[in-house]
Amino acid sequence: MSSINKVVLAYSGGLDTSVIVRWLQETYGCEVVTFTADIGQGEEVEPARAKAEALGVKEIYIDDLREEYARDYVFPMFRANTIYEGEYLLGTSIARPLIAKRLIEIANETGADAISHGATGKGNDQVRFELGAYALKPGVQVIAPWREWDLNSRDKLMEYCATHNIAVEQKRGTKSPYSMDANLLHISYEGANLEDPWSEPEEAMWRWTVAPEAAPDQPTYLELSYQQGDIVAIDGVAMSPATVIEHLNKVAGANGVGRLDIVENRYVGMKSRGCYETPAGTVMLRAHRAIESLTLDREVAHLKDELMPRYASLIYNGYWWSPERQMLQQSIDFSQREVNGEVRVKLYKGNVTVVGRRSAESLFDEKIATFDEDQGAYNQADAEGFIKLNALRLRIAANRGRGF
Amino acid sequence: MSSINKVVLAYSGGLDTSVIVRWLQETYGCEVVTFTADIGQGEEVEPARAKAEALGVKEIYIDDLREEYARDYVFPMFRANTIYEGEYLLGTSIARPLIAKRLIEIANETGADAISHGATGKGNDQVRFELGAYALKPGVQVIAPWREWDLNSRDKLMEYCATHNIAVEQKRGTKSPYSMDANLLHISYEGANLEDPWSEPEEAMWRWTVAPEAAPDQPTYLELSYQQGDIVAIDGVAMSPATVIEHLNKVAGANGVGRLDIVENRYVGMKSRGCYETPAGTVMLRAHRAIESLTLDREVAHLKDELMPRYASLIYNGYWWSPERQMLQQSIDFSQREVNGEVRVKLYKGNVTVVGRRSAESLFDEKIATFDEDQGAYNQADAEGFIKLNALRLRIAANRGRGF
Amino acid sequence: MSSINKVVLAYSGGLDTSVIVRWLQETYGCEVVTFTADIGQGEEVEPARAKAEALGVKEIYIDDLREEYARDYVFPMFRANTIYEGEYLLGTSIARPLIAKRLIEIANETGADAISHGATGKGNDQVRFELGAYALKPGVQVIAPWREWDLNSRDKLMEYCATHNIAVEQKRGTKSPYSMDANLLHISYEGANLEDPWSEPEEAMWRWTVAPEAAPDQPTYLELSYQQGDIVAIDGVAMSPATVIEHLNKVAGANGVGRLDIVENRYVGMKSRGCYETPAGTVMLRAHRAIESLTLDREVAHLKDELMPRYASLIYNGYWWSPERQMLQQSIDFSQREVNGEVRVKLYKGNVTVVGRRSAESLFDEKIATFDEDQGAYNQADAEGFIKLNALRLRIAANRGRGF
Amino acid sequence: MSSINKVVLAYSGGLDTSVIVRWLQETYGCEVVTFTADIGQGEEVEPARAKAEALGVKEIYIDDLREEYARDYVFPMFRANTIYEGEYLLGTSIARPLIAKRLIEIANETGADAISHGATGKGNDQVRFELGAYALKPGVQVIAPWREWDLNSRDKLMEYCATHNIAVEQKRGTKSPYSMDANLLHISYEGANLEDPWSEPEEAMWRWTVAPEAAPDQPTYLELSYQQGDIVAIDGVAMSPATVIEHLNKVAGANGVGRLDIVENRYVGMKSRGCYETPAGTVMLRAHRAIESLTLDREVAHLKDELMPRYASLIYNGYWWSPERQMLQQSIDFSQREVNGEVRVKLYKGNVTVVGRRSAESLFDEKIATFDEDQGAYNQADAEGFIKLNALRLRIAANRGRGF
Repeated sequence: MSSINKVVLAYSGGLDTSVIVRWLQETYGCEVVTFTADIGQGEEVEPARAKAEALGVKEIYIDDLREEYARDYVFPMFRANTIYEGEYLLGTSIARPLIAKRLIEIANETGADAISHGATGKGNDQVRFELGAYALKPGVQVIAPWREWDLNSRDKLMEYCATHNIAVEQKRGTKSPYSMDANLLHISYEGANLEDPWSEPEEAMWRWTVAPEAAPDQPTYLELSYQQGDIVAIDGVAMSPATVIEHLNKVAGANGVGRLDIVENRYVGMKSRGCYETPAGTVMLRAHRAIESLTLDREVAHLKDELMPRYASLIYNGYWWSPERQMLQQSIDFSQREVNGEVRVKLYKGNVTVVGRRSAESLFDEKIATFDEDQGAYNQADAEGFIKLNALRLRIAANRGRGF
Repeated sequence: MSSINKVVLAYSGGLDTSVIVRWLQETYGCEVVTFTADIGQGEEVEPARAKAEALGVKEIYIDDLREEYARDYVFPMFRANTIYEGEYLLGTSIARPLIAKRLIEIANETGADAISHGATGKGNDQVRFELGAYALKPGVQVIAPWREWDLNSRDKLMEYCATHNIAVEQKRGTKSPYSMDANLLHISYEGANLEDPWSEPEEAMWRWTVAPEAAPDQPTYLELSYQQGDIVAIDGVAMSPATVIEHLNKVAGANGVGRLDIVENRYVGMKSRGCYETPAGTVMLRAHRAIESLTLDREVAHLKDELMPRYASLIYNGYWWSPERQMLQQSIDFSQREVNGEVRVKLYKGNVTVVGRRSAESLFDEKIATFDEDQGAYNQADAEGFIKLNALRLRIAANRGRGF
Repeated sequence: MSSINKVVLAYSGGLDTSVIVRWLQETYGCEVVTFTADIGQGEEVEPARAKAEALGVKEIYIDDLREEYARDYVFPMFRANTIYEGEYLLGTSIARPLIAKRLIEIANETGADAISHGATGKGNDQVRFELGAYALKPGVQVIAPWREWDLNSRDKLMEYCATHNIAVEQKRGTKSPYSMDANLLHISYEGANLEDPWSEPEEAMWRWTVAPEAAPDQPTYLELSYQQGDIVAIDGVAMSPATVIEHLNKVAGANGVGRLDIVENRYVGMKSRGCYETPAGTVMLRAHRAIESLTLDREVAHLKDELMPRYASLIYNGYWWSPERQMLQQSIDFSQREVNGEVRVKLYKGNVTVVGRRSAESLFDEKIATFDEDQGAYNQADAEGFIKLNALRLRIAANRGRGF
Repeated sequence: MSSINKVVLAYSGGLDTSVIVRWLQETYGCEVVTFTADIGQGEEVEPARAKAEALGVKEIYIDDLREEYARDYVFPMFRANTIYEGEYLLGTSIARPLIAKRLIEIANETGADAISHGATGKGNDQVRFELGAYALKPGVQVIAPWREWDLNSRDKLMEYCATHNIAVEQKRGTKSPYSMDANLLHISYEGANLEDPWSEPEEAMWRWTVAPEAAPDQPTYLELSYQQGDIVAIDGVAMSPATVIEHLNKVAGANGVGRLDIVENRYVGMKSRGCYETPAGTVMLRAHRAIESLTLDREVAHLKDELMPRYASLIYNGYWWSPERQMLQQSIDFSQREVNGEVRVKLYKGNVTVVGRRSAESLFDEKIATFDEDQGAYNQADAEGFIKLNALRLRIAANRGRGF
């Protein structure tokens, strides 16, 4: 590996990445640029500035990326009704490509030759950060401290802080035993007692939602307005993408909506157990399917359903910045041209129920679908020929003695 | 069409199919064999005998097909996590191939040259019945009265009964305005005010589930035991397939679980709005995914997810009795060899939550997945090469100037 | 069916469609507009004018659609390496949507309320014409004489001509016993002794190609230039799409290239045997794959390969004018942005061999692929981690006792 | 890495693997077991015994695996009409899983704790050997000398031989400049001037086929008999799987059939250019499609075509020993139950032409497909309803103003 002059680090301001700043300075003798983003994780990002300064960092980037994140990543993904392994709404995965992009942009601006991140060598995030970085700047060098150093325990990290003069902030209250990660779309929990998949998460773990048991006894109704597959207003109030998600997180979370507890398959080859809260996403998935149910052609809808698992895997595995993801996105976005209209949902103690959908572009034709007399809109006699020809190959086979 | 001597009719004992008996006798001058099956619709089938006799039917078949239905149709379908258009659990669709098969078996036993059914010319059921019949007996003739006659309103049917001496049973209470259909797996509602997709179903419509609002304040926990992808016991009590479904319907329905309200795309080309109650199926889908999450290989799981929409469409469209459905079933069933273990679910006011899963065949390896020191079970350094080679094509492209 | 005032007929000028003109006039008492197109079938279209006039037709359309056909239908299809059932290049299928589109345009211009065509009720073409027509003008009426009349033999047609004063042209030489159809992309043969799939076609049947045995003893080399997936020049000479196909047909046909003899599955449910000559198409498929082999990303190429069979079926089945075909086309066209460069092919006695490919956008990196020392362009040690992590799930399964 | 006591090496008897024997002995201080297999590469395997003995090897395995290779690997693969990236018949890829399996069997028999092979760190073969080994024996250690040592040039290897007393055999004639690999199914060429994809291979490179120009002026006809998708006889003579391939290689090669020249995408991320001769395989692919064209149901055939690219990638990438490959094989094999019959092919100067196919299980129904009067076997009027209902969704969309 050639020598490194400057490295851009995805910096949270927390203990781990603070150690990484110092470790990079010492190990590589290089300058460190920190990059801290507000992607809706719900914590202040400004405090990271002082911490970085205290570590001697001269170039400090602090960005509010919430709107870009919602508009260019979350919303496009939801156009595909994306869900990984039937359950997971990809709340962590979809945030990574934006971080990778900003890391590279900052590397280009600051003349850095490397990037670094605080993801471990067992997880998916290292793959997502690094595939994105390589795709956007093929000659970049990547430093993944958790794969290199020997500070692989809390004690060793604390000792490193003590010997390297890094301030350790004492958080109030008891520290969560879980490994957590949050952004506008979700918060995730891993580790501790979750490592036993038979063990039910304790109520105290969840942070964004109330328990269904603790949710209000009265349901909340929402009317979501769609344009080209994206929510543009709630209850008649126009909202930006990030505001849509923030608003839905609040309302759905208060109704106990959005908890998930799964065992998933990581790209690096192992199964892991994770719990997630995705209040807004849970509503968005159901509602988007509902508006599509009125406005999408059948075969387009089915084609989307068949392509979706692959699209979901691409995002999960870190291939947002790949030509195959882009290629699929062309078809997905094209399919949304007429996905306009309104969906009414009812939120109640953990349930999201679609109770109405309407659209000026609806393909639902009451005149044809009706059980009442349809005045010739549909000729029932056509069905006989339809069935007969669809059956022809089956009848020929049966005539040839092929049985079941 | 050649002349018909004897026709086997799928006979419910209700008004419509009673009219069909007489209409077939008169229109085709043929003998009618009635076939009435208990597939768990929740109504007595024996009364159909007297009604058929009153109509002059000499060969009357009344079968209890619940176990065959659950074992050979519902359970195999759930092995694939089958869901149509992201929402519908195929409760009507999966019952049709069994009816088709019995109609043909009875035609063969009784020497009938035709079958008949009471499905309309606008729906999917005609397709499912007839494709199945043709696949199993290619020379059979099919009579679909709703596509032929002019009795296309309630009034005309009643008038026909009056002039043809068909007893009309007065049901107690008000008649439901909905078109309904039920079997072990679900009950469906169509028509009336549901024909406006913006209109919320009225509470009085639902029959199998209580409203989440009316469900108990205490959750119910269940432990489901799987063998090769099928539930074989609940809370430690071994149960037959039909008993599993009946039991889950009862428990889940009492907890407000299983309501669905969707707009779906029919095979005959129109969209229609339907409401469904599938209490057991809703639990089974979630729990099956959970046991698979522990026991299935990742790529097998993903392959299943990619094949599923097509498999679902085959069933929805009436191609159960087709070589392509059989071909897919081979792979699906093969994938279930090690899908054994237990899943704990919590039912609460409409929610089904998986709270634990375990298996002697689990592929979850706590030793590898742990956040703690893993004693070398996984070499984090391997991740670098993994990422580097996966990135190679992306880097080459970027070096060639291909951007994003 | 409501009464018809005016019908636009796809009119070849031949016997069958001349009978149809008169039959439409008599049966429907309506005015007939004829539409005759040059889509490269290799016969003069102008003579159709006099024939139509002789039949009393007042509105006569004769169009040269060769460039539109090549540019907007054939070329887009070849971007996908489209091939139906592993063999058939869709030479008939791809011409139909253009005919359907022109029929509807003319219907709109002339105020006609119906269209008509000369395709039989057993084939695919009726489906392709009519699906296109309905998609483009949903209220149009379609008259398919072969499904309606009883002139279902040559003798009856001749008799009809005699009694209805239709001139029957005596073609010189012996009439071909085959049912043939031709356009710029191919000529097809069906019927006669081909109805026995064990029977080898006689040499005299083929019209566009010489037999490989009769082809020159010297090979012909061609250099094809691609821009965005389309051939834009041959041997350095810029050519329009139709000219490209005409030129390749001539050169490849002279080298015995492009014969095909297959049994295919029709959309209407039967198998049929057809022979085809597609000289240009055979070259274009091989050469396009070759230029893609240099310029496409691997995953994009694989995704295209997986989508292709469905795209081919859509075209074969008549769904060119469908939203799902359009949706797929978005992805396909997007994938071709960098498919630029040159391919050298050798034509020799029936063989098409790619002997070279180059591109300024090539992703082939000799520096990395070389067997010689690569100066560190590729780090072989990365392969170990790549393999180890890809093997992880397999090792875990094997450790759990899952064998093969 | 723990210490190694005994390693099983895939040993060809050539220079490279002889160096590996010594290098393993010296570097790891371990015992080396050699394994040499006849998989139809066309060279004697017995001479490897003396060479191994000379290197001090005590446990020497020499196996004739030709029939197992043909029967359990090549034939199952051809049932799927497998082809990678539209061109490559996977001749190298499909031989690797068998080698991996034998390496592990021998490791188990001899108590070895490691395996080794002579594949480089840039290619696919390392992946195929090692994924197979790990899947079959998860705890095995793998030594890949080309990724570890510094003998990365011919000169260094020769010097190693000189200093380590390894006999270097002088081959008669000029040495081929190409990297070659052969087995029953094909011979491959890489490197040298092929590294320029614009460069045409020189005639002298090819070893298994004559040039089309040099092939006989008379065609050769063959009749291939199929049972369940496999060839069981040629020209009426029953043959074992390996004999089928050997026979076809000889006859097809003599007719100039089977050359291929492509740029392919390796799993490790680079493109590479390879030339292949696969005479038997080229015939087998065409003929198998022909017998399937008569005997397979349409939807089964299409499903196979859609699954094939993924199945091909699995084999190419080294996942033969994976549950997902097994899962697909279930469906593929099931589809072949009625793939019985005969195919006649004509071989002529590089061309393989199917000139006839017949089967007792044929689904081709001349009575229905005929252009002549069919006596009511097919009701043309059915086509109208078939088209009308298939068009319904398109018409509704057009009525809603959705255009093209």
